[in-house]
Amino acid sequence: MKENTTFELNPRLSADSILVGEFPLTSLLMMNDSQFPWFVLVPRRIYIREAYQLNQSDQSVLWRESSSLSQLIMKHFKGDKLNVAAIGNIVSQFHLHHVIRYEKDICWPKPIWGQHPMKPIESIDLKNCLSDLLPKLEKIGLKRALNNRK
Amino acid sequence: MKENTTFELNPRLSADSILVGEFPLTSLLMMNDSQFPWFVLVPRRIYIREAYQLNQSDQSVLWRESSSLSQLIMKHFKGDKLNVAAIGNIVSQFHLHHVIRYEKDICWPKPIWGQHPMKPIESIDLKNCLSDLLPKLEKIGLKRALNNRK
Repeated sequence: MKENTTFELNPRLSADSILVGEFPLTSLLMMNDSQFPWFVLVPRRIYIREAYQLNQSDQSVLWRESSSLSQLIMKHFKGDKLNVAAIGNIVSQFHLHHVIRYEKDICWPKPIWGQHPMKPIESIDLKNCLSDLLPKLEKIGLKRALNNRK
Repeated sequence: MKENTTFELNPRLSADSILVGEFPLTSLLMMNDSQFPWFVLVPRRIYIREAYQLNQSDQSVLWRESSSLSQLIMKHFKGDKLNVAAIGNIVSQFHLHHVIRYEKDICWPKPIWGQHPMKPIESIDLKNCLSDLLPKLEKIGLKRALNNRK
């Protein structure tokens, strides 16, 4: 049997999200949930469940990419608070959530995980959202996914 | 009125936890909850609500301290999964949760926040837990809090 040595996005993460593009280390997903602006970074490394399992250099890059993304989405979506979390109790492939929170959102002040079922985004809303956001993301080093190219 | 320029731990965080000691940047708290080994890192910097508000150098130190702590507590407590999260919807002073999770714990696979009320730790259990853990934490740079000194 051939050993799996190529990064593949976990099928459940993939099913619940849209691949927005790629930073040097991580792939950027937007979760398909209209209730919150919700992004996930997944380092393209295999067999990683916890951040500390990445080598030192990858850890530095991960947190730099997370920091740039955080700042950008908080400004873009005018969030009240950002929730950043590595949980992974269900999907063990390491992935880092970034959720924009509003004091009036449906879960506030609780975290969003394990509370309400996801509500898919209308494709027109998604298109609008991404067309505003993508140029800003490209400025911080994102290479857009093929299906998001103009 | 005098401006507050000295770091002070948020009173709610302080009430719910024990100060274990100090890393170069962050203070290490153990949450007073017998249901999970649950630690919190708080950078001793003022006016910080989000990780990206720390300067670059502090951000690097934060994630290095988090990584060392994560690795140590996962080994010490033989966790199945680590949950690392910056939420702060209630206590806005930036604090980074590190929760050891077991597949048989009371919340699995949900995150612990907003689920079950905390259950205080018996002081004898706490003493035992800290006496095993503190020497290991000192090896990764923790200076123990005054009330934890021998």
